[in-house]
Amino acid sequence: METLVLVLDLVGTFVFALSGAMAGVRHRLDVFGVLVLSFVAANAGGILRDVLIGAVPPAAIADWRYIFVSLLAGSVTFWAQGTVRRLRDAVLVFDAAGLGVFAVSGALKATAFGLNPLAAVLLGMLTGIGGGMLRDLLVAEVPIVLRADLYAVAGLVGAAVVVGGQILGLPSSPLAIVGAALCFGLRLLALRRGWALPVARATDQ
Amino acid sequence: METLVLVLDLVGTFVFALSGAMAGVRHRLDVFGVLVLSFVAANAGGILRDVLIGAVPPAAIADWRYIFVSLLAGSVTFWAQGTVRRLRDAVLVFDAAGLGVFAVSGALKATAFGLNPLAAVLLGMLTGIGGGMLRDLLVAEVPIVLRADLYAVAGLVGAAVVVGGQILGLPSSPLAIVGAALCFGLRLLALRRGWALPVARATDQ
Amino acid sequence: METLVLVLDLVGTFVFALSGAMAGVRHRLDVFGVLVLSFVAANAGGILRDVLIGAVPPAAIADWRYIFVSLLAGSVTFWAQGTVRRLRDAVLVFDAAGLGVFAVSGALKATAFGLNPLAAVLLGMLTGIGGGMLRDLLVAEVPIVLRADLYAVAGLVGAAVVVGGQILGLPSSPLAIVGAALCFGLRLLALRRGWALPVARATDQ
Repeated sequence: METLVLVLDLVGTFVFALSGAMAGVRHRLDVFGVLVLSFVAANAGGILRDVLIGAVPPAAIADWRYIFVSLLAGSVTFWAQGTVRRLRDAVLVFDAAGLGVFAVSGALKATAFGLNPLAAVLLGMLTGIGGGMLRDLLVAEVPIVLRADLYAVAGLVGAAVVVGGQILGLPSSPLAIVGAALCFGLRLLALRRGWALPVARATDQ
Repeated sequence: METLVLVLDLVGTFVFALSGAMAGVRHRLDVFGVLVLSFVAANAGGILRDVLIGAVPPAAIADWRYIFVSLLAGSVTFWAQGTVRRLRDAVLVFDAAGLGVFAVSGALKATAFGLNPLAAVLLGMLTGIGGGMLRDLLVAEVPIVLRADLYAVAGLVGAAVVVGGQILGLPSSPLAIVGAALCFGLRLLALRRGWALPVARATDQ
Repeated sequence: METLVLVLDLVGTFVFALSGAMAGVRHRLDVFGVLVLSFVAANAGGILRDVLIGAVPPAAIADWRYIFVSLLAGSVTFWAQGTVRRLRDAVLVFDAAGLGVFAVSGALKATAFGLNPLAAVLLGMLTGIGGGMLRDLLVAEVPIVLRADLYAVAGLVGAAVVVGGQILGLPSSPLAIVGAALCFGLRLLALRRGWALPVARATDQ
């Protein structure tokens, strides 16, 4: 089980890093900038969570594997961007899986550090979306998660399932699987059907 | 006294959250984005202060009331933005009150954690302005507090009164009231008279 | 030796603060905004490092000298920007020296806090470039270090020399001098010869 979580975590890191690297290439950053965006997109959510709960140094910095996997994904994108772009649909599926894994593991870590349930759910979601938000800020764009698509809500659902189940005393491992799977499925459905959240109707400013 | 501080703190949180939500609506964010901006505008200043002084998890995350009040203000703005906009003048007055409360409580918390007086004053000011700065960054704008209006200086004065008074050995409660009131009055005066800080004169670039 | 490090550190702080203040003046910020950018450019890298390794409150906040030097540089720039601009070439040389000092001292502090070698090198580099990145974000620009010039790599080399030498058991003081000097020389060479890192070749988006 623990090995499975680690593998899923590293897969999520790799895919999130791909999204960061592609944003960097699109904005004409140099190779250093592309690698920074890879690392940020993959790890900033978890780093933010760890700083907020007092788990320093954050796992993404203390464990070299996260750094290595992020830089690997960035390098692959930089030198083979055509291939990465052709695989865009597959990347979106893996990204949905990464969101599920990150939201669930983030919520579990927050409860383990004694946060209240509401905060744990929000920190789980932050683990899933924080990297993408900082990725967008670094290229001077309004984070896409704030304006388009149904993305954060899927992470919220995954984190809420885990935290809610723990309150009910259910065992953690099946909870984590159900939470991540729900998040994954909801995100895929949102992608396929073009689901989006409502925007406030325009009024005179 | 403690109840009064809590009530003022929550009122400040509510009003700051309104400003975040209005920025989100103006930039056509979806409902999730509007709620994120509400939370950020209301709580990022205090969260930054808590992370910097080592008070983790930050109060704004560990205490569900701050989260609840922020999301409430965001929801109200999203579904009744016309009303919120009509009340803009009242919101500005409450915002000035929020600035006073946050600057004073931020400075007090920093001294309680052993920071030196200069740092405590700056962290008090940061508590008051940090949320608005991150709100503006998230919609890809230069923070308004850096370029227009007399806003941060009011927070600085409020925090300085509290920290200076403590050095002189004056009792905390009246100090806090005087500091917050001074900040509040200065900010209202600046609004009414259109006070602004000097900008460097243009030269050939 | 310790006095030398402190002096170099404060010189680095002063020069980095100049770069922040000049960015603020260029973007028509008011005097408060210019001072904020001075402080951020000079200290945000070290503050980020300290938050990530758990050294709170960060040295740049707990020690009034860093605040004082930053505000001094900001004030000088605000009221004598013509002079500062005429000295631009000298400022670039001092900035290269500041990068070397910050990268080396950041890496040493990270290893002293028990970080692994890879993380220590990256945190050394972050100490050198983090302030400039946040300076650019606050004026809504893509950080220049991500897209132009050879800058971060010089910091990386300086930090790597120190960390690598420590692994080999070499004494710290000469290591720090060699690392900072290498970083300084590499940055000056990059400036003189216009070295830059590769950008991914354009493809159909």
